Amino acid sequence: MILRQITSPGLAHNSYFLGSQGTATVIDPRRDCEVFLDLAREHDMRITHIFETHRNEDYVIGSLELAARCGAEIFHGHETDFAFGNPVRDGDEFTIGSLRCRVMETPGHTMDHIAVAVTDTAVADTPFLVFTGDALFAGDVGRTDFFGRENRARVSGMLYDSIHEKILPLGDGVIVCPAHGAGSVCGAEIADHEFSTVGYEKATNPLLKMDRQEFVEYKVAEHHYLPPYFRQMEQLNQFGPPLRGHVPDLAPLEIGQVKNLMANGVQLLDIRSPTSFAAGHVPGSISIWREGLSAYAGYFLDYTVPVVLVDDFNLDLGDIAEFLFRMGYDNLEGYMAGGFPAWFKAGERTDKFEAWTVQELSAVLGEKKELFLLDVRDIDNRNEVGYIPGSSHIYVGELPDRTCEVPKDRLVVVYCDSGYKGSLGASILRRLGYPSVVNLLGGMGAWIKAGYPAARK
Amino acid sequence: MILRQITSPGLAHNSYFLGSQGTATVIDPRRDCEVFLDLAREHDMRITHIFETHRNEDYVIGSLELAARCGAEIFHGHETDFAFGNPVRDGDEFTIGSLRCRVMETPGHTMDHIAVAVTDTAVADTPFLVFTGDALFAGDVGRTDFFGRENRARVSGMLYDSIHEKILPLGDGVIVCPAHGAGSVCGAEIADHEFSTVGYEKATNPLLKMDRQEFVEYKVAEHHYLPPYFRQMEQLNQFGPPLRGHVPDLAPLEIGQVKNLMANGVQLLDIRSPTSFAAGHVPGSISIWREGLSAYAGYFLDYTVPVVLVDDFNLDLGDIAEFLFRMGYDNLEGYMAGGFPAWFKAGERTDKFEAWTVQELSAVLGEKKELFLLDVRDIDNRNEVGYIPGSSHIYVGELPDRTCEVPKDRLVVVYCDSGYKGSLGASILRRLGYPSVVNLLGGMGAWIKAGYPAARK
Amino acid sequence: MILRQITSPGLAHNSYFLGSQGTATVIDPRRDCEVFLDLAREHDMRITHIFETHRNEDYVIGSLELAARCGAEIFHGHETDFAFGNPVRDGDEFTIGSLRCRVMETPGHTMDHIAVAVTDTAVADTPFLVFTGDALFAGDVGRTDFFGRENRARVSGMLYDSIHEKILPLGDGVIVCPAHGAGSVCGAEIADHEFSTVGYEKATNPLLKMDRQEFVEYKVAEHHYLPPYFRQMEQLNQFGPPLRGHVPDLAPLEIGQVKNLMANGVQLLDIRSPTSFAAGHVPGSISIWREGLSAYAGYFLDYTVPVVLVDDFNLDLGDIAEFLFRMGYDNLEGYMAGGFPAWFKAGERTDKFEAWTVQELSAVLGEKKELFLLDVRDIDNRNEVGYIPGSSHIYVGELPDRTCEVPKDRLVVVYCDSGYKGSLGASILRRLGYPSVVNLLGGMGAWIKAGYPAARK
Amino acid sequence: MILRQITSPGLAHNSYFLGSQGTATVIDPRRDCEVFLDLAREHDMRITHIFETHRNEDYVIGSLELAARCGAEIFHGHETDFAFGNPVRDGDEFTIGSLRCRVMETPGHTMDHIAVAVTDTAVADTPFLVFTGDALFAGDVGRTDFFGRENRARVSGMLYDSIHEKILPLGDGVIVCPAHGAGSVCGAEIADHEFSTVGYEKATNPLLKMDRQEFVEYKVAEHHYLPPYFRQMEQLNQFGPPLRGHVPDLAPLEIGQVKNLMANGVQLLDIRSPTSFAAGHVPGSISIWREGLSAYAGYFLDYTVPVVLVDDFNLDLGDIAEFLFRMGYDNLEGYMAGGFPAWFKAGERTDKFEAWTVQELSAVLGEKKELFLLDVRDIDNRNEVGYIPGSSHIYVGELPDRTCEVPKDRLVVVYCDSGYKGSLGASILRRLGYPSVVNLLGGMGAWIKAGYPAARK
Repeated sequence: MILRQITSPGLAHNSYFLGSQGTATVIDPRRDCEVFLDLAREHDMRITHIFETHRNEDYVIGSLELAARCGAEIFHGHETDFAFGNPVRDGDEFTIGSLRCRVMETPGHTMDHIAVAVTDTAVADTPFLVFTGDALFAGDVGRTDFFGRENRARVSGMLYDSIHEKILPLGDGVIVCPAHGAGSVCGAEIADHEFSTVGYEKATNPLLKMDRQEFVEYKVAEHHYLPPYFRQMEQLNQFGPPLRGHVPDLAPLEIGQVKNLMANGVQLLDIRSPTSFAAGHVPGSISIWREGLSAYAGYFLDYTVPVVLVDDFNLDLGDIAEFLFRMGYDNLEGYMAGGFPAWFKAGERTDKFEAWTVQELSAVLGEKKELFLLDVRDIDNRNEVGYIPGSSHIYVGELPDRTCEVPKDRLVVVYCDSGYKGSLGASILRRLGYPSVVNLLGGMGAWIKAGYPAARK
Repeated sequence: MILRQITSPGLAHNSYFLGSQGTATVIDPRRDCEVFLDLAREHDMRITHIFETHRNEDYVIGSLELAARCGAEIFHGHETDFAFGNPVRDGDEFTIGSLRCRVMETPGHTMDHIAVAVTDTAVADTPFLVFTGDALFAGDVGRTDFFGRENRARVSGMLYDSIHEKILPLGDGVIVCPAHGAGSVCGAEIADHEFSTVGYEKATNPLLKMDRQEFVEYKVAEHHYLPPYFRQMEQLNQFGPPLRGHVPDLAPLEIGQVKNLMANGVQLLDIRSPTSFAAGHVPGSISIWREGLSAYAGYFLDYTVPVVLVDDFNLDLGDIAEFLFRMGYDNLEGYMAGGFPAWFKAGERTDKFEAWTVQELSAVLGEKKELFLLDVRDIDNRNEVGYIPGSSHIYVGELPDRTCEVPKDRLVVVYCDSGYKGSLGASILRRLGYPSVVNLLGGMGAWIKAGYPAARK
Repeated sequence: MILRQITSPGLAHNSYFLGSQGTATVIDPRRDCEVFLDLAREHDMRITHIFETHRNEDYVIGSLELAARCGAEIFHGHETDFAFGNPVRDGDEFTIGSLRCRVMETPGHTMDHIAVAVTDTAVADTPFLVFTGDALFAGDVGRTDFFGRENRARVSGMLYDSIHEKILPLGDGVIVCPAHGAGSVCGAEIADHEFSTVGYEKATNPLLKMDRQEFVEYKVAEHHYLPPYFRQMEQLNQFGPPLRGHVPDLAPLEIGQVKNLMANGVQLLDIRSPTSFAAGHVPGSISIWREGLSAYAGYFLDYTVPVVLVDDFNLDLGDIAEFLFRMGYDNLEGYMAGGFPAWFKAGERTDKFEAWTVQELSAVLGEKKELFLLDVRDIDNRNEVGYIPGSSHIYVGELPDRTCEVPKDRLVVVYCDSGYKGSLGASILRRLGYPSVVNLLGGMGAWIKAGYPAARK
Repeated sequence: MILRQITSPGLAHNSYFLGSQGTATVIDPRRDCEVFLDLAREHDMRITHIFETHRNEDYVIGSLELAARCGAEIFHGHETDFAFGNPVRDGDEFTIGSLRCRVMETPGHTMDHIAVAVTDTAVADTPFLVFTGDALFAGDVGRTDFFGRENRARVSGMLYDSIHEKILPLGDGVIVCPAHGAGSVCGAEIADHEFSTVGYEKATNPLLKMDRQEFVEYKVAEHHYLPPYFRQMEQLNQFGPPLRGHVPDLAPLEIGQVKNLMANGVQLLDIRSPTSFAAGHVPGSISIWREGLSAYAGYFLDYTVPVVLVDDFNLDLGDIAEFLFRMGYDNLEGYMAGGFPAWFKAGERTDKFEAWTVQELSAVLGEKKELFLLDVRDIDNRNEVGYIPGSSHIYVGELPDRTCEVPKDRLVVVYCDSGYKGSLGASILRRLGYPSVVNLLGGMGAWIKAGYPAARK
């Protein structure tokens, strides 16, 4: 038996490859599916079944890409009217070598959500692992905010029942294979464990210790942001994303080519660090650091306008192409050949803003200068950690819609927890014509570590 | 948290890499340790601790190689007087990022055996996984035959206590990470599961359902073969194997160079298939197929005489070098350039014997010809599956010591379960001058599938 | 400037990647074109031009596959009416960074043949390398036998002129980049040099020392075999091969699946060694060793019947898939899971024949037994090296059409130069029902090395 | 025959692997020698000979590392008293398969310099390629400034004779394989060609068109910088560098560990871009960008003080380790875990300076402010391209020794050709306590492209 967890960094999404005796199944395959074919080759297996635990909303599912390569059948819950694949129902069973995969309908995160419990008939008639999708994570459970505020209590109850009536009864010794790990936008409290067990979750997952009413109240009160690209993912995953066959090849673009693209409308995605972006960047570019792309690109990148990457040294851009490909961004035009230095070596007009350390901010605040302190962290972080006294709060993902709240005639100091989202926020403001913007290096984390005071509501 | 199981095929041995927050530990590292350094690099971690669950007997431990590269400390049980590393005792604890690793003395398989239970303090104060070494496997437990027949009941009882008093009380939800998977010579009944849990083992492992007396009786009655290279491994692992730094590079050897080596004493290790070996081979060579090297090379290969590999197409010989390196065979001289075809293209003297199908054997047996049918399977397989009527039994590993039982003046038909060990047995007999030898392709498996009768005691 | 020669083993075909200042061209790309995209990525280049030196006949050109990935334009000679790409004429020039690529029409091997001379304008106005396609090789020149015997003198003269009037005048210091290396079916005498120069060829290539009349007479007298798949390649390369996107994935096939395929018509391609094939094989299978596929598969494999591979250990089958993909065999169904041993372990009916050493043959010949000695080498080898006295000659590629010359009622001993083509020939005869067939291990080479006499006409 | 050029980027150094018929030689192997062993494995070859064209001064030769792995013999010129290997003399010949390698003493760049001419006896008795080391490059010849000004005319004449009497007479069609490509510190005018030929060099290399006197005068007048690490390389290469077995593994270092190291003396090597460095860096760190390490690390890095790398995202640090390993820097301690952002997230004290665009500089100059414009380019570049009016010149490599020429009480604007060396120069000044430093992004190149005036002497 071969079990492999394939993690997509950034998304913190897990696909699984499970094989036995020459055949294999893939659960929630990612779109760049060569990895599954490689595993099949390595272990002399034929992929025959693909399961989608639910219509994912945070990435493009790779089922069609994979099926086109290996001829496997696709299976998903029957509650969504998928334009491809086969609907399955509670109790449906499928055979993979000596393994028996049983479908369990587990609605709550989505209506079509299924879990798949696996029994190895060569050993015993009792299940040994379960793919829990976005129902149960290590240390957390799935979001229940996709059906509107009016339905939230109802679907939270459904999730509670799915977990308590379907998953937990499988037995303490059953290995739990969730669709997300720590860092996913699909669960803020997911523990940094690749696998868990039913027993360990029962013992340690705070959500599982609540009774039904507590659970529902907790979930109803929970706050989640909904990146706008989720709608696009849901469409693609329900009706079938276009087949690409491979992650797009990135073309190097000379400065002249970049300027032509700029003249016709282009999104310049600057993936450099906050320091590098602050000291110089192409006017109008958006600052999202590498690890932040999965969480933030979906707020700011349009699917219909070509994207050009800007880096310092153009290192590992294939990773960036993969990140964006998984989010359905097939509109990557290329990258700036020679990196941002090619831009300044060409003597082109360059934008910049200041990057302050917390010491600098503190000194300026001490001078009682007029400035607008803008906290762009998510609200949970602000509430838990505290904030710099006097700062206003707008979540970075909502900044484009709420700039009326940010004065243009004052120096705006943007800060987050570390300095990355601050750079993103500052880049958004600069694009919108804010004349004086500063990013705080280190953000709230550095502010506290350096011993400055945090305010709390 | 990063948990990776690194499996060495053939040996079916598992090493583990476990990392958290920038530091990592490796459990039972294999000798070609680059894989651990790669993992550390990939995840920006520093390997600080190496645990050896016991003085392994089936492979050379890679602790010293790894420590020389990364500066980690080595830890092992205090009951063996290791010439390197640090002894640990029950209850000793070590910190890896947010993880707390607690040593549990678990004697039985060896006296110095330890298990390591791991708690993630970032989540809870209850353990979530345990490295069980050779104490507990998925579906089986460790061997208890290393201390002589007279001690077998006593050490079997110790193993029972180690499992029942130390490992099982950790809780059903604890993930079990054993040192061996299916196919290891360290446990005949190991299930083909990479991971298990305490709960699943309690529910399904037949050894865990026995009471202490049943367990001890079962273990005392159990039959195991003891490959002679085990002694060499124990020596190396106790006193420290020589540092090599890398798997040996294999040199291509022209036919003239091979013949020179043959004149001075060499071991020709023929890794081709039973069909290819039967139709032609260098006189005096030993036939062990690729996957069989880990289980059988240790019976036949001398550590002091140079080894030369013979293949058909010289494919993936690096894998072979790794297999033998892990077993301490640092005496690889090279491989026959051009493969065995180079030998026959040079017009050199070639040995061969017949390879019969089961249909051919049946026909010959029908003719009542005089022949000696030699079953070289392990005795458990003979007893479970049955045997070809009229066959004698000598386990292939014992064949060199028991040839007095095999007549030289009759046609000897060697068979096993499939045809591979039959080829090995036949090659041993040819080396010893047996004039008429046949290998049965497909062995007992094909005999039964083709509908011929099996005898049973 | 980046110049890379990409060699396809077996075919001994060379593609070239040539890049300068961010742009690149590929000459004669092979069908599995990822390698060129990788080079472009590695060197931050965009592939803008693809040149085909001629309508190749020994492999499927990868221009369309590559153009679909990178958007490059395709260029080839105007004398063939290609269904894709752009025709070019003598003197056409193209710019790649600082490089100027000039087209030279060089008919002879084909009518549409072009060479491409490259000047680096950053250094000087004199060319420094030339892509010579199949016009000029290291130590040989292209074949001129594709237009029928009646045109051979004429096209040989054209080739002479192309070389002497176009290529050689470029200057002695110009690097020669030919489309084939040693081992290609496109030139028997190609030297084992990756690159050459005009000067070195003028000094050492025997074909270049002839005057026009000598050259034409030599080329007219030259003997070449024409594998039947050449016609298929010419069709595909003129009208455009189907786009695949990737080398086919090979599926493992259980014995039951293989037998089903056999019932419906399948080609079993056995890629094992002559010894392994002789001692047992699936009835009806064809024996072609790995390195022999490029030269011999095209004689025996049908494009319309599925192909199943049979190996011993299923090693590196991706290479085999690549070889066949380059020859247009998109009909690979999969491979026998578990290799040929799975067949005999299933107790299935197995065919075999004897493999003799030269010593055995000599002994049998000494006994004056009735046998038919069949030499299947190419005729040039037979003429140069001599033959075993009493042997008949039929080139292995012509064997299926000339079996009327081989008696069925006698033992047929097939031999070649080494034993591989002998195995192929023997497998063909067995398929056709010849009851008694032997392959000579080592063939004529071993015969001579062992000191036995060679006959000559 | 297999010929492979192995290029070490940055150094622009070429090693060569040349193999024939199962044996191979390596010319000027680099220190991380796994690449040669891989080639030997891939082509079933045994490396038997290693040639050093001369006692290299710009990198650590890998002969001893390689010989330790494969058992090859090392050969070098007899004029230096090497502590290892074998001296060779003019006319010595060595056989590699069908190849004959003839040593030619070619003093000038060094006294011990040899070239190796290769003849393929399977083809002809005339040489087809020559390894020219640092005697002849594509478009340039070797430096002749290592023996003091008083000997420069004499050794330049020796180089002239070596080239004209030994290398050029080999014939126009001979392929030239030099030890360096474009970008090497060993020749400013080396063309961006991987290979050349004697004929092409005769036709295009301006140095080869001079007569002896012109050549000597030109070489005597030529200006070269001599990085201080050259002396260390010469020592190591003459007496044998320490054997490491592999490129050092880099350890991630937490901020606390970095600060401890800083307390005890450490070199912080910041490999980020000029923009990133300007906006924030660890006080006292040196700014050398990735591609600049080979040319500039040797001026500033001490061999006896530990080195810690600082990057933005810690990408591809293995490449950096390789660069420094090749220059003998075995004192790499590790890298800042989390990159420079970890530093500012910890709230640590951060240094910074301004990065100006050329537009900003022009505006400031227009305001007639007091500032010190410091040009740190090499003098050839300044002379060829011109300079910003009013700027002083100190080559960046000489800056530490000439700071007395740079006023501390004025704003110092450092510029180079592009902005990278400017960042390095500015970092040097900051370390030395200069209070006001600016780096000019884009440097002289941007200045000219933006249309500002260049001065010339």
